[in-house]
Amino acid sequence: MWQLFQFPLCPFSRKVRLVLGEKGVAHELQRENPWERRDEFVDLNPAGETPVMVEPDRGVTLIGSQPICEYFDETVDKAQMIQGNAVARAEIRRLTEWFDQKLFAEVVAPLLNERMLKRVLHSQSPDTNVLRHAMRVANGHMDYFDYLLDHRRWLAGNSLSLADFTAAAHLSVIDYLGGLDWRGHQQTKDWYSVMKSRPCFRPLLGERMDGIVPPKHYDKVDF
Amino acid sequence: MWQLFQFPLCPFSRKVRLVLGEKGVAHELQRENPWERRDEFVDLNPAGETPVMVEPDRGVTLIGSQPICEYFDETVDKAQMIQGNAVARAEIRRLTEWFDQKLFAEVVAPLLNERMLKRVLHSQSPDTNVLRHAMRVANGHMDYFDYLLDHRRWLAGNSLSLADFTAAAHLSVIDYLGGLDWRGHQQTKDWYSVMKSRPCFRPLLGERMDGIVPPKHYDKVDF
Ligand SMILES: N[C@@H](CCC(=O)N[C@@H](CS)C(=O)NCC(=O)O)C(=O)O
Ligand SMILES: N[C@@H](CCC(=O)N[C@@H](CS)C(=O)NCC(=O)O)C(=O)O
Repeated sequence: MWQLFQFPLCPFSRKVRLVLGEKGVAHELQRENPWERRDEFVDLNPAGETPVMVEPDRGVTLIGSQPICEYFDETVDKAQMIQGNAVARAEIRRLTEWFDQKLFAEVVAPLLNERMLKRVLHSQSPDTNVLRHAMRVANGHMDYFDYLLDHRRWLAGNSLSLADFTAAAHLSVIDYLGGLDWRGHQQTKDWYSVMKSRPCFRPLLGERMDGIVPPKHYDKVDF
Repeated sequence: MWQLFQFPLCPFSRKVRLVLGEKGVAHELQRENPWERRDEFVDLNPAGETPVMVEPDRGVTLIGSQPICEYFDETVDKAQMIQGNAVARAEIRRLTEWFDQKLFAEVVAPLLNERMLKRVLHSQSPDTNVLRHAMRVANGHMDYFDYLLDHRRWLAGNSLSLADFTAAAHLSVIDYLGGLDWRGHQQTKDWYSVMKSRPCFRPLLGERMDGIVPPKHYDKVDF
């Protein structure tokens, strides 16, 4: 069986879990805290990052959320994630990368750092200036979501795709860490409520990161 | 005809140009300096980044080096870039992302900033501490190249792939900016010499960025 090395608030692992869930790929979760830089884990992935997937019986190791998602999209027909013609596929990949890089670097990473890593590694409290700035930037990203959803059925076009699951993965971590103010973002809110109600999303919303409590609305489909 | 918005020292545009060259896709170069944030360009790509490709007759816009390379690999059979079984393809994508993200962020971006942007935008000279640090990190990356090439025919496995062209694109920019010390990296040197001698590489090596002179060995296949 596939093993997925991850921790509950890793957005890239959430992206992979949503895809595995939609596709019905059986897998076991292996808890990995990449900041501990466990030797055996760095041997698996020289970048020392989650997610990594391993299939011990076949001796296969897959590294990084995008290579992993492309792998399962190529090998499992169910719930195609990067579908349509080549132009539509380029748009799905563009937005997926935008969320994985910009949304992550500008919002998710600072929130994880302030609210999770500082606490775990140094028992420090978060810097409220950094939190406030990340929330402002998150708001700008949600404006872009609203804009896309004003023009399209789903984020990348007419079909539900990897772009939606990737965006939802990152948003769910931001939301868990109290970084989203949903007021004024009705389009994004409606879309996220639909995403949350998919069966693949339930296990994620039920999980907790040790010592960090999400806001009350976090796991509600109606929020 | 396809138009490619780029500037000579953009490593992501070089990656795309190598792929287009290998595949024989006709295209015109459009000079774009993303740091000028030209309105029409930001309308094309909200991220304001090169490379972007446009096919005006068909109204198609492709954004970002990886979506562009995947697009042409899906639509042009010649010179397959992401080939082999799904596991081999995951390894090609892992390394490509490693070069595009880590090698870029740790080495290429600081060098571009110190040697190109500071000069163009502020007429400032480079900070030699930053240059020295980037060169040290570049050296560590070359150790990893050496290690891979000790175990494999090409960077990602038995076939020449997008990982090789991506690595060569980034290395060529670092080399142009004087950031590589080739001593002690015979495996990488031999591999890079083979890459440089491919016809798709010649036009890149002949181009110059306004006001920045590369080292003498830069465009030589034997260096
Ligand atoms: N491009 C990678 C990024 C993975 C990543 O950045 N993972 C973070 C956790 S969210 C990590 O492991 N960081 C290293 C650390 O915390 O030491 C992917 O898409 O999988
Ligand atoms: N992920 C993008 C990265 C593109 C990128 O970072 N391009 C740089 C130039 S090398 C850029 O346009 N930066 C914006 C600026 O200079 O303002 C890709 O692979 O195409």
